[in-house]
Amino acid sequence: MSVAELCRLSISEAARLISSRAVSPVDLAQAHLDRIEQTDGRLNSFITVTSDAALEAARAAESRAVSGSLRGPLDGIPIGLKDLYYTKGVRTTIGSKILSGFVPDTDAAVTERFEQAGAVLVGKLQMHEFAIGPTSINPHYGPARNPWGLDRITGGSSGGSGSAVASGQVMGALGSDTGGSVRIPAALCGIVGLKPTFGRVSRYGVYPLSWSLDTVGPMTRTVGDAALVMNVIAGHDPRDPWSVDRPVEDYAEGIDDGVAGLRIGIPREYFFDLLDAEVRQAVEESARVLERLGANVEEVSIPILERSLSISGTIMLAEAAAVHAAHLRSRAADMGGDVRLRLESAALIPAIDYVAAQQARRLFSRGVARVMDDFDLLIAPTTPICAPPIDEKAVTIDGATEAAAAVLPRLTRPFNVCGLPTVSVPCGFTSDGMPIGLQIAGRAFAEAAALRAAHAYEQAAGWHERRPPI
Amino acid sequence: MSVAELCRLSISEAARLISSRAVSPVDLAQAHLDRIEQTDGRLNSFITVTSDAALEAARAAESRAVSGSLRGPLDGIPIGLKDLYYTKGVRTTIGSKILSGFVPDTDAAVTERFEQAGAVLVGKLQMHEFAIGPTSINPHYGPARNPWGLDRITGGSSGGSGSAVASGQVMGALGSDTGGSVRIPAALCGIVGLKPTFGRVSRYGVYPLSWSLDTVGPMTRTVGDAALVMNVIAGHDPRDPWSVDRPVEDYAEGIDDGVAGLRIGIPREYFFDLLDAEVRQAVEESARVLERLGANVEEVSIPILERSLSISGTIMLAEAAAVHAAHLRSRAADMGGDVRLRLESAALIPAIDYVAAQQARRLFSRGVARVMDDFDLLIAPTTPICAPPIDEKAVTIDGATEAAAAVLPRLTRPFNVCGLPTVSVPCGFTSDGMPIGLQIAGRAFAEAAALRAAHAYEQAAGWHERRPPI
Repeated sequence: MSVAELCRLSISEAARLISSRAVSPVDLAQAHLDRIEQTDGRLNSFITVTSDAALEAARAAESRAVSGSLRGPLDGIPIGLKDLYYTKGVRTTIGSKILSGFVPDTDAAVTERFEQAGAVLVGKLQMHEFAIGPTSINPHYGPARNPWGLDRITGGSSGGSGSAVASGQVMGALGSDTGGSVRIPAALCGIVGLKPTFGRVSRYGVYPLSWSLDTVGPMTRTVGDAALVMNVIAGHDPRDPWSVDRPVEDYAEGIDDGVAGLRIGIPREYFFDLLDAEVRQAVEESARVLERLGANVEEVSIPILERSLSISGTIMLAEAAAVHAAHLRSRAADMGGDVRLRLESAALIPAIDYVAAQQARRLFSRGVARVMDDFDLLIAPTTPICAPPIDEKAVTIDGATEAAAAVLPRLTRPFNVCGLPTVSVPCGFTSDGMPIGLQIAGRAFAEAAALRAAHAYEQAAGWHERRPPI
Repeated sequence: MSVAELCRLSISEAARLISSRAVSPVDLAQAHLDRIEQTDGRLNSFITVTSDAALEAARAAESRAVSGSLRGPLDGIPIGLKDLYYTKGVRTTIGSKILSGFVPDTDAAVTERFEQAGAVLVGKLQMHEFAIGPTSINPHYGPARNPWGLDRITGGSSGGSGSAVASGQVMGALGSDTGGSVRIPAALCGIVGLKPTFGRVSRYGVYPLSWSLDTVGPMTRTVGDAALVMNVIAGHDPRDPWSVDRPVEDYAEGIDDGVAGLRIGIPREYFFDLLDAEVRQAVEESARVLERLGANVEEVSIPILERSLSISGTIMLAEAAAVHAAHLRSRAADMGGDVRLRLESAALIPAIDYVAAQQARRLFSRGVARVMDDFDLLIAPTTPICAPPIDEKAVTIDGATEAAAAVLPRLTRPFNVCGLPTVSVPCGFTSDGMPIGLQIAGRAFAEAAALRAAHAYEQAAGWHERRPPI
């Protein structure tokens, strides 16, 4: 198989080929390292490439393949980690200049789990500085570039994860999602991104943005692959005080069971208020596809939805200001302008606003939970717009001009506030060839149901078969 | 039986007499109303006395006694509620002028549970305004006065609950405890007060002070009676989002099982740093009593204990400022000076301090939980001093002069921060006849173990048999 062919495989295809010894993990790793070599000068997905360690891990996977002791479907699979996951002995910059020399002496819980599963880490991925922003235009490491158009943003904050997965530099990656940072780049780069239920995946060893909102999530080219990654990373971890101790489902099992008879709510208020026309059309069409597959799609109204943006912003920024208090005092000049401005403003938020936001969050979550008594799933657009050009800070929708950074997380944040698991899956392309994302949210801890529906949609719609021009 | 005799019974004694029809619930209610009539001009425990409703409830209990359909040990028992528990149709002032005319149209969860258990509500009890203070010197309703010395404070914020139970005006009461508001007046009034584990008793219909710290707790004259009240009020309630859904123990069962073999930790740092000499002596002696009863008492060190005061203060005040934001804007002039000053300062706390306090709280809680891996219980003084005179704002300990309001909650707050169940039980008297309290804390949700130890100590020490002079 050529480098191009190897780098187009899904994780599940590659796992079968490794298991049958048709593909060697070493060849697979080398192909991805070659692909990075060929493309990363243009894409800028990586902050650090770990070639030697990757080849060593691949050789170990190959030995297991030879001896018939493979550890599961991720054994020998090249993956990348957003550069806020602690990797023992490998620098972890959080996309910042301030921590550009930080080398953790411990692994994140998910780093450990990938290693135990035999996955091959090929490097650390580009991100918005400190994960505080949705564009991944990074002043210290340069912008991550979108494989569907190199002049376009990838979305963020997990921008490098988006471009690396979409372009075939890695087979899967982890992003982190506090206000949309997995789903936004997944949508803008035409891949699958899952924000699990808050508390489902350990954040131990993940540099925090906002501990009451941060989640760890997989980014892959197919829904089935996201399920395979979830099977490795999900579960309780007492080292993360917010980790929830409840049984983990097998996310891959039953993924072909379809959506017949499921009740799917589509909230039109708010989610469809400010929306690019082509995005609107693609999402409407995807609702019809789900109906043709046997689901019942009905309009639904979610209470105080419009407040979720300010709830999310207040909580996230106040906690971020606490996380970075020492950096603000002594290293503010080493921050990018947008991040510095956000953190300096955040340090002035009164506690009274923060606690009111946490209180409103509980009200909102209870309101959404009541809605979910009547629905199995909700669907909505992931972002109101597709990837804008890197050098355009403002976008125009329906004649209104808005800052791209304000528009991008508008539709993802509500699901961070209520904590529900939400997957973004490609649902079409604009006339200029940019991907569009559909969000499918499930009940708390029902990641499997959301993935099942996303998989049924993906297989029916087939958008995952398109490849970016790079 | 005389009024005085009826008003000295414990709940468990009275329950037996009602069950055997030796005492009528109507006579019992009337005796307590008479006692209130005789004493409340001096004690000022009550904001509202509900004589007619109490006698009606007592007649219903009497009918059940006659027909052999009593609902349990609280049926026909006269009780009082701190004036922040919602009582349908009965005004609920929160100790404030601002809400002096507030008549709820719903009952608190615990009000309902008392009613279902047949308890006879005789009135609403005095408190520190909005529960923001440990003295219960109230500018709107006058100070609650201590039955052991009418010139002394009762402690607060559940001051009226303390004086009413200690003086025999009611057989039991509910206080609420955010930083010590059940245990402080229990200690200063010579009665038993239990702060349950955070999340164990529903706060639905309880006017909040600080929702991430508030707890509902019984105040009674014996430990056994506190167990009987807990059997009525403990349990999950989805209407309180912080209520925990886990099985409830029978708190009365096994209460005689003693402390033989239990490991009891005594943290000397912090808890013994600033302490009245007579309090120190009484607590040391109570440790020896527990040892004679077969417990192993050992010194223990609790990490970052000294930070728990500021953690608690920041969280409590910031949340209180959010609760009272509208009152601060429009009714500040109608607040007492101390409460207004606290709330106005609290409105200026930055969110960054609040979130750092919540983060530190988790660290502290985990540290305490690790200590509790090695200990069944912790013991400590409840308050560093006994009840000071109402007109003395400052107290002198070991030659240092401190504000009474700052000293009183110093030893109770750590247990609010970590959430452990903690009971205060009388452990002696000063040379001038003022009661001293001992705190016994258990593991999370192990209220039964803490009550068992407190009961063993109480029965051995016998301090509960002393009656105040009034």
